[in-house]
This record gives sequence, C-alpha cells and structure tokens, in this order.
Amino acid sequence: MTVEVICIGDELLIGQTVNTNATWIGAELANFGVKVMFSSVIKDVKSDICNALDLALSRVDVVIVTGGLGPTKDDVTKSVLAEYFKVDLELNQDVLTRVKAYFLKRGKKMVDVNVRQAELPKGCTILQNDMGTAPGMWFDVNDQVVVSLPGVPFEMKYILKEHGFPLLLDRFNSKPLFQRTLQFQGIGESYLADRISDLEEQMFSDGLSFAYLPSAGAVRLRISGKCNAVDEELITNYIIELYKRFPAYAFGEEEESLSEIVGTLLVEDGLSLGTVESCTGGAIASELVRVPGSSRYFRGSVISYANEVKVDFVGVNHSDIERDGAVSEVVVKQMAENGRRHLGVDYCISTSGITGPEGGSEEKPVGLVWIGIAGPEGVVAKHFLFGDFRERNIRKTVLSALNLLRCELLEINTEKK
Amino acid sequence: MTVEVICIGDELLIGQTVNTNATWIGAELANFGVKVMFSSVIKDVKSDICNALDLALSRVDVVIVTGGLGPTKDDVTKSVLAEYFKVDLELNQDVLTRVKAYFLKRGKKMVDVNVRQAELPKGCTILQNDMGTAPGMWFDVNDQVVVSLPGVPFEMKYILKEHGFPLLLDRFNSKPLFQRTLQFQGIGESYLADRISDLEEQMFSDGLSFAYLPSAGAVRLRISGKCNAVDEELITNYIIELYKRFPAYAFGEEEESLSEIVGTLLVEDGLSLGTVESCTGGAIASELVRVPGSSRYFRGSVISYANEVKVDFVGVNHSDIERDGAVSEVVVKQMAENGRRHLGVDYCISTSGITGPEGGSEEKPVGLVWIGIAGPEGVVAKHFLFGDFRERNIRKTVLSALNLLRCELLEINTEKK
Repeated sequence: MTVEVICIGDELLIGQTVNTNATWIGAELANFGVKVMFSSVIKDVKSDICNALDLALSRVDVVIVTGGLGPTKDDVTKSVLAEYFKVDLELNQDVLTRVKAYFLKRGKKMVDVNVRQAELPKGCTILQNDMGTAPGMWFDVNDQVVVSLPGVPFEMKYILKEHGFPLLLDRFNSKPLFQRTLQFQGIGESYLADRISDLEEQMFSDGLSFAYLPSAGAVRLRISGKCNAVDEELITNYIIELYKRFPAYAFGEEEESLSEIVGTLLVEDGLSLGTVESCTGGAIASELVRVPGSSRYFRGSVISYANEVKVDFVGVNHSDIERDGAVSEVVVKQMAENGRRHLGVDYCISTSGITGPEGGSEEKPVGLVWIGIAGPEGVVAKHFLFGDFRERNIRKTVLSALNLLRCELLEINTEKK
Repeated sequence: MTVEVICIGDELLIGQTVNTNATWIGAELANFGVKVMFSSVIKDVKSDICNALDLALSRVDVVIVTGGLGPTKDDVTKSVLAEYFKVDLELNQDVLTRVKAYFLKRGKKMVDVNVRQAELPKGCTILQNDMGTAPGMWFDVNDQVVVSLPGVPFEMKYILKEHGFPLLLDRFNSKPLFQRTLQFQGIGESYLADRISDLEEQMFSDGLSFAYLPSAGAVRLRISGKCNAVDEELITNYIIELYKRFPAYAFGEEEESLSEIVGTLLVEDGLSLGTVESCTGGAIASELVRVPGSSRYFRGSVISYANEVKVDFVGVNHSDIERDGAVSEVVVKQMAENGRRHLGVDYCISTSGITGPEGGSEEKPVGLVWIGIAGPEGVVAKHFLFGDFRERNIRKTVLSALNLLRCELLEINTEKK
C-alpha cells in the first residue's frame, strides 16, 4: 500500500500553522509498516485540489486529504470532491442527527452553516466523527481510495484511528511492523548513542532498525523489526538490556508520560504528592493533573513565584533567601520540606531556578535550576544547568523533577549513573 | 512572484521530524507579501526529485528545495540537481577553503566526505553558509529560479535570510501583502461566521480575503489584501469594526497570547495577580509564567486540587463544599476572594470544574467549569459547559479565565455579548 497525504489550507502554506497532521499520519502509518511516499500542501482552491488529486491518483494507492471541511465559506474541499467525483451533495439524515445531538449536548444553538455540514457527496462512505461536526469521507476509485478528513488534528486523528486505518489495513491487507519505543530522560541523544554504540552495531547486524527521536528534556529510541516471533524476542531483549544499563534515565515506553509513570508508582504504594514551584510556575502540577485520575495522589501545590509567597506561605526562612538567594539548595530544600508538611503529603517536589531571558548572573546564569524532593526519608536536592530558552528550561525542569521523583520512589541512585 | 517549497527527506514522510522548514519559509515569505502556492515533501530518490522539479517549474516562478545536502550517501540532492541541469560537479576552491576553516575552528578532523561538500554543480551561484559546511545553490532557469538549501533548520534559515530572500525579492521586484489577524476567545468559528456574515460579504466584494483558524478555545480571523493604502485602510476599518462588535471576544492580534495581554494590562496599572486553581491544576499559573517578565505582576498560586487543601489552605467553608459541592459558585467565589487576601494580590482567578473523563453526574456533567475572579470591586463567577475531553477542557478553562480577567480589567460587560 502506497500513500500520499494532501493537506489543504492556506494557513499551512503561509506558515501560520505547523503541518503536524502530515507528521502524525506518516508516523502512524510507519507503525503499520506503511510508508507515505509523497506529502503535499495546497491552497483552498478548486483547481489546485483537482490537480493534486489527479497527480496523487497517478502514483499511489491511497490518498489521504485533510482540511477544508469546516462550516465556513473558505472551506471548499467537500464541494470540490463532489464535483471531482461527479456526484451531488445530499443531506445525510444520520449525520444531521449527530450534528444536532452534538450541539444539544453542549447547550449551543445550531446555525445554518452547521446544517450544511450534514450535506455530503452522494455515494461516499461516511467515517463517523464523534469529536466534531464534520465527518470523514471515503471514496472508492476503482482499486484506489481517497479519504477526506477535517483538518482539526484531534478530529482527524480520531477518525483515522477509529475508522480510517482499520479499513485501509484491511483493504490493502497490510502486515504491521513490530516496534517498541523506549523513553529516556536526563541524557542527550549523542551521549546515549555513544554509550550504546555496541548495542547499535548488534541491532544493525540483527537486521533491526532503530531511530532516535529527541525533544526538550527527553529522547525516544525506537527499535523496529518484522512482525515475527524472532524479532519480537530480539527487540524485547534489547529493551531489557537498555532498562538495565540506564535505570536513572530509561523511564518508560511508547507514549507513557513521566507524570503517568510517577502516578502509577504513587497509587501502588498509596502515597500522596504535592509541589511547591517557583520557576516552573505550576507547570509540574498541571503536568500531573493532565493525567486522568490524578486526584488519587495529587493533592495540591503552592506556586511561590514571588519571594514573599515563599516566606509568608511556605515558611521559607527569609534570612536564607537573603544570604543564598532564592535559587539555592537551602531554599529549595525548605520549599520541599515545608510544602510536604503544610500540604500533608508523602512527597513534595520543589523548584527554583533562573529560566531567562533576564535574571542571570555570572555566578547564577540563565538555565540554573534547583530541584528538591522531600519524602518520608528526608529531603534531597539537585541542581541542573539547562540552556538559554525560557520555555525549554521550564519543560526540562518539569521532566527532570518528575524523573527525580521516579528515582526516589524506586530507590534508584541518581548520583552514579 | 509565486513559490513552491520542496522538502526532501524520508524522516519527514515517516513522521520522525516535523516539517518546520516549510512552515518557516511560508511565514517569512508571507511577511514579504509572497505566497507559497504549493509545498511538498518527497523521498531522497532521483526520479521523485526530478518529477517534483518538473512539476514545480511548470507552475511557479521560484522553487525552494531543502534537504539532502549532507555529506553522507543518502544525501543525493546535489548530484541529482547537477544531472537535472545537465552540468558537472566541480571542486569549488572558495567553498573548500571555508569548509577547511570550519573544521579547523572547531578543532575537528576533516574527512574525505567533507571535501566532497565543496564539489558543486558548474555554473550555479553559491549562497554562502556560515553556519555549516553545505552551501546553498541558486540556479537560473530562464526566468525562473531554483534554490537548494541544506535541511538543518538553522543553516537553511541563515542562508535564506542572508542571501536567498534579498536576492529573490530584488529579482522579482516583489510587493509585500498587507494582512492582520484578529484573535477571538469564547466564541466558536461557526457562531463568529454567522454573526459577521454581512462583513464577510463586504470583505469579499472589497476584494479582500479572509480565513478562520480555530484551535481549542480560540479562533483567529485573518484578513488580507494588497499592500497599498486603500487595502490597509479597509482592513484596519474591518479590524476596528470587529473589535467594536465583539469586545468580550476579540482580545488581540497576530501572535499575542491572552497571558501577554493580561500581563500588559496589569503592568500598566501596577496591579498584581494570583490564582487558586482546582481543575486546571496550575495550568493558568504556568501559562502566565511562560511570559518573560511575568514576575512583575504574577505573585503565586495555591493549587487546591484536593478538597482538604481548599479548606485548610484556602479557607473555603467546609459546609459549603458539603452542601453545594466543590464545583459551585459559592466555592469558586470563596477560592478567589480568600486567595486574593492570602496571596496579597489585587486580582485572583479561581477555577473548579469537572474536566473528565470521570467524575461527571447528570446534574454536573463532565465539561462543567466554574471560574471566579476576585478584584478590588468584589468577586464575579461564571460557569461554562465545555466538552468531553480532559486536556481540551483544561485548555479552554485557562483561556476563558484569562479572557474573563481581561474583561474585568477593561470593565467589559461579559453578560450581554
């Protein structure tokens, strides 16, 4: 099965929106061992859409089109597709019922343009959209397939996952690939590669492929092979070896987040968690709360951004701030310990750092962050020197703090790594 | 001048790398009023590259190619271009000197493949790369131009900014486009379109183009026209009219975030801000802290996720929680008022809601959120019914809360919209 992705939308061409849809579709299909051969972005213009479809149908089996299905006048994909396939638009009662229910449930008034979303090209197969009002459409073109989806990422993803991919894999009888992705925190891509160069060579000679996928504060290592028992076992053994080599770095697999992993550990032992955050300003707490069911262990936080809040609310010693500064071991330890006591939690994470762009000095440059963890056994603190960019520094602090807590909970020594 | 961007690289097609190069080129050219008409991603394969060049040269003036210029064997762009333009590769002494200097400066050893980077297609104009070893190449094809650049974002950006864009703009004598993007919070795309259908028609007959760009909790409306005095005035008048029609929704322009806008308003009046968050779990605080310099107005927060923290730390009346539940007007008002007093701030935002997936009931379904704002004039509270998805509900609460604060600070009535 060969695939072309066509994304429709001026906002992509003029760079107002990053084309994450094409990335996601490429990555998901790669999981099934299917490669996207071409990917293109075109304007919301009839002739461009028709030409792109002509070209795509001349060179691939499956064309996945995203965008241009919204209710407004600049969204032309649906009517162009109807014209391209020489069929009329007709009101689909099923879809209309769903659209009506969608608005009713949200207590919102439906307007005329929303009714038009239930008008669909005659004869296409409808791919139900439970996340929004524009359904996906599947067109059979002899042996080829054109699938049209809304451009809103979470709607597009839902429709493909629930309906599109299963239908396509079934139709083209595709064999999936076996792969596992191990996630690391606290070690850079090149250091990791350096420390596993022996394994890399082995994997290569075993016929497996692997790829590093770095992001701020984390690296994912994906190992893939054919979907058979031999490769599955090989890959599993490599994963086990990697976990063994890097207990303080290798934290989880696939899409698991550090906040989920920490949450699972806390629930297992019936422990509770709070945070006292300065430089992260609540980013750790909100990362924890993104996980459904986090109320089982997360109780609350104090965001002590201003020093007066550190003193008045958290009980940090004013003279210690005067002497060592707010970004210091003594302050971050007091924040964690006092937060643990005041919030009545088993563990408390604290952060204090200089995320930039202002506020750095020679002694304490932008990127310096202290992280504390108070627990039943006492308090530990570590400092990190991240980079120059505020948002990346905050993100790295969040992940480093959660990983530090993970190591504390698992009694992993983070000093000798 | 019309432009097509061709990005070469398997890693883009299989979703290992997000194609930010195309986004950046599109955005930069849009600033010059030049529209990218097509953008495509293809594999590192000779026939695909040649076909893509044929197609692009059949429909645009300028083709910008990125990727495939590295020193390794999988990088074929340079030799394919030489073949496509029927010229030989020849060693360029200037480039060789630069490559040598590059390695010398970094104390690295130069290997054979690096020497090959100085072999370039005969007759092309070299666009110097001070950020790396692969220079950009400019080919004149009658009246058209093909520019080839390395795929490493910061090298590509450097070469285009320093050499490519100035040469292109000069060559095609380009006139920039005038456009403005207005951002809305609290009104959906279809409602907005419905309420400005008269303006849409006027804009259309004035020859302006417009587009809606929705995201969770916000919509951007972009209006564009030619860069002349008439269009600029027309667009400015539409922007003024839209601000006037939707004071509670239209919050800012271009890339301004609500947290920046609220920050500016607070700084102007020397006011301070805190939050007491339950369902958002610190997401409002961390959104505020993402803005550099937020310490001028943001002092801190209490994340009272557990009810005991609401009672013990924030002083919410326990019997009120018992009677009305934590997601209620009375509780969210107490959270805001007490937070304001305890944190010693002028304004305090509070949130309490059911973000899902669990915890909903018939009376209080998933998506129900109460937001409170306490200020010098007292406390207000509003409730919202968002959707089914935890992360989107949190995001919508963050934006709605910041917009509600904006309206309070500007004394905009949010009841009659």
